[in-house]
Amino acid sequence: MNKEIFVKLLEQRQYKAVRSILDVMNEVDIASLLTELNDRDLAIAFRLIPKDKAAEVFANTDGSLQAKLVAVFSETELRELVDDLYMDDTVDILEELPANLVNRILDTVSPSDRALINQLLNYPEDSAGSIMTTEYVDIRESMTVAQTMAHIKETGIHKETIYTCYVTDRRKLIGIVSAKDLMTTDDDVLIRDLMETEIISVSTHTDREEVAKLFTKYDFLALPVLDTDGRMVGIVTFDDAMDVMVEEATEDITKMAAMNPSEKSYFETSVLGHARNRIPWLLILMFTSIITGTIITKYEDAFAAIPLLVSFIPMLMDTGGNCGSQSSTLIIRGLALSQIRFRDIFKVVFKEFRISLVVGSVLAVTNGIRIMIQYQDINLAIVIALSLIGTVIAAKLVGCMLPLFASKAHLDPAIMASPLITTLVDIFSILIYFNVATILFQL
Amino acid sequence: MNKEIFVKLLEQRQYKAVRSILDVMNEVDIASLLTELNDRDLAIAFRLIPKDKAAEVFANTDGSLQAKLVAVFSETELRELVDDLYMDDTVDILEELPANLVNRILDTVSPSDRALINQLLNYPEDSAGSIMTTEYVDIRESMTVAQTMAHIKETGIHKETIYTCYVTDRRKLIGIVSAKDLMTTDDDVLIRDLMETEIISVSTHTDREEVAKLFTKYDFLALPVLDTDGRMVGIVTFDDAMDVMVEEATEDITKMAAMNPSEKSYFETSVLGHARNRIPWLLILMFTSIITGTIITKYEDAFAAIPLLVSFIPMLMDTGGNCGSQSSTLIIRGLALSQIRFRDIFKVVFKEFRISLVVGSVLAVTNGIRIMIQYQDINLAIVIALSLIGTVIAAKLVGCMLPLFASKAHLDPAIMASPLITTLVDIFSILIYFNVATILFQL
Repeated sequence: MNKEIFVKLLEQRQYKAVRSILDVMNEVDIASLLTELNDRDLAIAFRLIPKDKAAEVFANTDGSLQAKLVAVFSETELRELVDDLYMDDTVDILEELPANLVNRILDTVSPSDRALINQLLNYPEDSAGSIMTTEYVDIRESMTVAQTMAHIKETGIHKETIYTCYVTDRRKLIGIVSAKDLMTTDDDVLIRDLMETEIISVSTHTDREEVAKLFTKYDFLALPVLDTDGRMVGIVTFDDAMDVMVEEATEDITKMAAMNPSEKSYFETSVLGHARNRIPWLLILMFTSIITGTIITKYEDAFAAIPLLVSFIPMLMDTGGNCGSQSSTLIIRGLALSQIRFRDIFKVVFKEFRISLVVGSVLAVTNGIRIMIQYQDINLAIVIALSLIGTVIAAKLVGCMLPLFASKAHLDPAIMASPLITTLVDIFSILIYFNVATILFQL
Repeated sequence: MNKEIFVKLLEQRQYKAVRSILDVMNEVDIASLLTELNDRDLAIAFRLIPKDKAAEVFANTDGSLQAKLVAVFSETELRELVDDLYMDDTVDILEELPANLVNRILDTVSPSDRALINQLLNYPEDSAGSIMTTEYVDIRESMTVAQTMAHIKETGIHKETIYTCYVTDRRKLIGIVSAKDLMTTDDDVLIRDLMETEIISVSTHTDREEVAKLFTKYDFLALPVLDTDGRMVGIVTFDDAMDVMVEEATEDITKMAAMNPSEKSYFETSVLGHARNRIPWLLILMFTSIITGTIITKYEDAFAAIPLLVSFIPMLMDTGGNCGSQSSTLIIRGLALSQIRFRDIFKVVFKEFRISLVVGSVLAVTNGIRIMIQYQDINLAIVIALSLIGTVIAAKLVGCMLPLFASKAHLDPAIMASPLITTLVDIFSILIYFNVATILFQL
């Protein structure tokens, strides 16, 4: 939808046309259109959205827009909106809103809903409890397929998903029936005879990353969440799991570039916010690389005698850093996808050792030829070639081992990525280089 | 399931017990159990899997295991297996199998299926066509809800998903009805009055990454795929989209660490395979950093006069590299999630400039104090402080601009990550450093 046309229609009060447009638009697209309107147009446009879409549009807008809308809504409008929102979306919205607006919303809901919302707000931030919804189809094993279908017809419209029905007995989960099974089975079959009893579930305190991994592994549409007493309290749906996957990948990538992850997007984070996320690691890495500098001063005599030696420092340091990050990146990703485990450490180290022999030799020969052509100095070529092979081996071994040790120590392996590896490998490459040079040039 | 117990039961020919175990296990878990068996046990175990699970277990095992099984299957077994497999899984499997086994499978299917499989095998590797399935629920707008439900009961069991039904008219897609709508609507309502006509679809040639993005954006369960003439030819389901998301994130992370991405996992890739993926970028970056080395030789007089200058090279180079990768990483991720676009370039550059002033000042002051304490040399402190600020600004600007230019030039921004940025920023940091030093120390 073209924004200009939409705004023009709004300003000309062509509300019927606006309503027709909103009628055919997807909720996600309406939400992104709303972000481009000014405050007055926004309130009018939102009230013109067809009632059955309004809640989903609202859930898809960002925090600042939601705050604006809640501030102008009447109490009746608020009550209607919250009624139509799924419980997990309500909680997500409340987590973002300023306190006075949170109270406005909590005042409109029933006491039982208020208790439930407060409970959901109390689950740890990255837990299954914090992303679950409490609206699911709850059935008994003594029901028939026809009775279940009738039950769904009656209550299903308010459930986030009806494609998995949960068979409970005194709040304990005893079975699962998919809508596909219901729709392709005869009416008089008992749920007891249809339900699957091999159930994979999570607890309210399971880390949301673990939850997302289960979704990718088993291709679930929804996953039941049990409390510490094993009673069913909610479900996590696949759309929330997909969001978690994207957020977790962003978090890992951010950490791998030596920054503290932020929940906000690039433009939502302020200049000072960005600086705060970036400075701590830069300081740590800066002081680590001072060690490398200090080591270099120990070899002052060497490069005073052969100043050309200094010019190879960047090449050796960069190659070492790159080799190290290649290995650490593959290991970090393999750990994240559960393809590599700590017990594989010897296999990994042996593999990286062989890879570094191949890689190191290719780089050494290429560079050796380059130096022979440029300087016609066989000793220099040998020094650089040997240093390169040593650096590549050291870099790959450090690069593959540190993330594995981090995982063993229950640290996030992602912090053992390029920047830290690079700085550590620098020390090795400088030591190898100047020692080889000192010996071969008899300095 | 404990592997040892399972193998023992197999060897003792306790097939009834084995079958009971397989009966309650999840398909994905059975598949991973099979990978641990030897060839003889494998064939026996597979034949003991309940018939309604066999196809899904098969689809969840890896290529080498599938090849082993296909090789030992009788023609009847093969035909039954392929009948039960969804079309997209069959195609995935055929893409991995050696040619003689592909022919064995193609011989068992009907001529029309064979034509379809061959067509699916011909779609470009990363296209929607290559990941779609051709089994979906196809209905007419003149049907009622009850007729549709009856149609699903009859044909649904063989469809990969029945939760979205597609209303077509002479193969053109005219509407969509969800199973939720069907299950919560009265029997005599016409599909025409129930269907949604605002349809988001992709073409057979749409890049699979684009397809995955649509799933994350709109939370779809399935997405219709149209051919170039606008006729409906298949659907992509959310589980395939999730797999694509994980694969694409891995691909980006791999590229960002200066490696060619591989479709195989870490252990599946051979030593030479790893070396081949890593060497090209290492060579390119090595030769780029030789430029930095050459620049250093131009300042031989400077560090011959003050050898201490050399010891600050690693710190400046590392800090520049780290600052540059921080910026480039955030921009690359923002581009991948469509949160940042090329048209934002001025906003980004201005933001990074302000961030680099803050970050640069903090690093400069910290380091200045350190140098004053260690060397009591105010000139040296000023040289390093100024060089740090200059390096941070240059690094952040290069780091944020290169991925944006890459996206504009339709290159993958992920290649503009840490390693390349680091090597380029090195040149800036060395030039800034030695020029500041030459001026301030009047060398």
